[in-house]
Amino acid sequence: MGTTHTHQAELFTPDNPLRLSGGAELAQVEVAYETYGELNHDASNAIFVCHALTGDAHAAGFHEGSSKPGWWDNIIGPGRPLDTDRWFVICPNLLGGCRGTTGPSSINPATGRAYGVDFPLLQISDFVTVHRALLAHLGIEKLYAAIGGSMGGMQVLQWAVETPEQVERAVVIAASSRLTAQNIAFSAVARQAIMRDPGFAEGRYLDEDVDVEGPRSGLAIARMMAHITYLSEQGLAEKFGRRFQNEQSLGGFGVDFAVESYLDHQGSVFLDRFDALSYLYLTRVMDYFDPFDDPEAVKRIAEGATRFLVMSFDTDWRFNTNHSRRIVRQLVDGGVQTSFREITSPWGHDSFLLELDDYHRTVAAFLGAP
Amino acid sequence: MGTTHTHQAELFTPDNPLRLSGGAELAQVEVAYETYGELNHDASNAIFVCHALTGDAHAAGFHEGSSKPGWWDNIIGPGRPLDTDRWFVICPNLLGGCRGTTGPSSINPATGRAYGVDFPLLQISDFVTVHRALLAHLGIEKLYAAIGGSMGGMQVLQWAVETPEQVERAVVIAASSRLTAQNIAFSAVARQAIMRDPGFAEGRYLDEDVDVEGPRSGLAIARMMAHITYLSEQGLAEKFGRRFQNEQSLGGFGVDFAVESYLDHQGSVFLDRFDALSYLYLTRVMDYFDPFDDPEAVKRIAEGATRFLVMSFDTDWRFNTNHSRRIVRQLVDGGVQTSFREITSPWGHDSFLLELDDYHRTVAAFLGAP
Repeated sequence: MGTTHTHQAELFTPDNPLRLSGGAELAQVEVAYETYGELNHDASNAIFVCHALTGDAHAAGFHEGSSKPGWWDNIIGPGRPLDTDRWFVICPNLLGGCRGTTGPSSINPATGRAYGVDFPLLQISDFVTVHRALLAHLGIEKLYAAIGGSMGGMQVLQWAVETPEQVERAVVIAASSRLTAQNIAFSAVARQAIMRDPGFAEGRYLDEDVDVEGPRSGLAIARMMAHITYLSEQGLAEKFGRRFQNEQSLGGFGVDFAVESYLDHQGSVFLDRFDALSYLYLTRVMDYFDPFDDPEAVKRIAEGATRFLVMSFDTDWRFNTNHSRRIVRQLVDGGVQTSFREITSPWGHDSFLLELDDYHRTVAAFLGAP
Repeated sequence: MGTTHTHQAELFTPDNPLRLSGGAELAQVEVAYETYGELNHDASNAIFVCHALTGDAHAAGFHEGSSKPGWWDNIIGPGRPLDTDRWFVICPNLLGGCRGTTGPSSINPATGRAYGVDFPLLQISDFVTVHRALLAHLGIEKLYAAIGGSMGGMQVLQWAVETPEQVERAVVIAASSRLTAQNIAFSAVARQAIMRDPGFAEGRYLDEDVDVEGPRSGLAIARMMAHITYLSEQGLAEKFGRRFQNEQSLGGFGVDFAVESYLDHQGSVFLDRFDALSYLYLTRVMDYFDPFDDPEAVKRIAEGATRFLVMSFDTDWRFNTNHSRRIVRQLVDGGVQTSFREITSPWGHDSFLLELDDYHRTVAAFLGAP
């Protein structure tokens, strides 16, 4: 992909508010999104990309003046698995996010201040409601495919549960249909790190009359901890082992081992691109996600005839293969046409972002099949 | 065990300072310790218990007026694997700790203030130096056995490396001879949580003229995160699953799931019994531990004729069985008499603290063998 840019759409307004599954309403929702490739004449070639926890609309190509490609550039583009010579690829920033779509750091039109913790709680279903509104805005009725990794895969699954007739093919990668106690525990500690930071100021850190710089330490800690779960033990060993960051050990409690330097860097660059409140809202969404709790869910997918590709990575321990197997079991038992692949990769959960032959070939084959 | 109490010994003084492996000296070291059972006439029945990161000298029995037994009471006592009818059991609090033995929160005699971050950096070897001094103080030349789990096992291993003739039997449980990048990463994030807490005040929070209450949030976060690694995914699932703490879900970002309540409680009770500086010092010690880096280490053990029992737990992912296997391989290759057992237990790393039949029988058999 060459140069790409982010669009902005006002999808919900006071006359047409967004009704959330929890009962609250948002009277104004703007969505940032990007598209790659061309929509064909009968609007039948759209592939919808759902991003994960900290992703954004900039999935592919380069923004003017930037040398850093979008987060999924290796899979989107001419000749790539999401082939933009053939398909029209759409990727929006999530509701509740902080990268152009309305979220807790947006201005609440009712008060003229940032929502903060007054932003309503979200569910995966709410993301999908907004995705559908974006599709309608783009004049598309039905998707050729929806695809996403991690929390992106959860949105794809939820979409198929709600309106399967709209999703011909669903690609669910390194995702979960129900978090374990350990998954919830990690997210809970991350949120505590943010909320206990004095800079959080009970969620009011964005208010002009609250003189704090935000929960920067807490957010960095949350991100560092999350990064440990994104890489496998083996991946960390291969990447860093017990190497020191400098030629000689410095001792002390600061950065000494290379793995410490890596985490420190990840924590610090994250602060420039992510908002702590979005982190709270988006992680909490996952904790409650449990679509198969509804006994009718799979039946609806089967009736809507969505076809599934479910994938996992063998060293992923954020959402290990058992999470994918559970999804597959539910789908297959309910008569949904489902393919499943566990990909071998040393890189843990992060593998879904990487260019791995076997992985990309499997996605390309599934999307390319008639 | 019935009522037990903690003794205090001044093991190093200005005339006889503690020389640390890093080169620094401590002119005054007091050690808190407990003993259970009776030392026999030729002082040949002593078993030395080395505690883990957050343990203390109170390993067994009950302190006057308390209904909470010592942390390893289930394994120490009449008829238990560390049978106090037969053996004299010793357990000291570690150097650098905060439960009666000199550490960073102790008063530095040179300044009249708490050491804080001026306390010298430690190595596992320094713990062992102090252990040997305690033995001498008690008039014991040689141990019937040394035993410890997790960081306790590291001390046992180091002791055998340094003075194997002093350790007839070594029991190393759920320990490591070399942390992985993932192990180091978890500890690094825990330390960052503490040091980035404004209450840390660059390690000066104990000074009377520094008006902060200490890094309470950071220490709680560190402890919560550590607790996730002490329990297996399966153990957390069995204990908590996706249950809510109250009858109904509360929503929001606070404690809602039972696993969140558990972590919150663990983080909070820890503040009453542990010092954040000790947490920094004692976790950092483990990162650098690598006794087999010395090619002579195993040879010395073999010459000293220490016999080893190495144990792991199959769901432990803090120090998984590979850590124990590495120790066993090194010992066996060097001709050290070594038994190895991996115990089946759903409870992860914490298993070493639990009363598990197979585990306790194995320890009892090894200690009871002639």
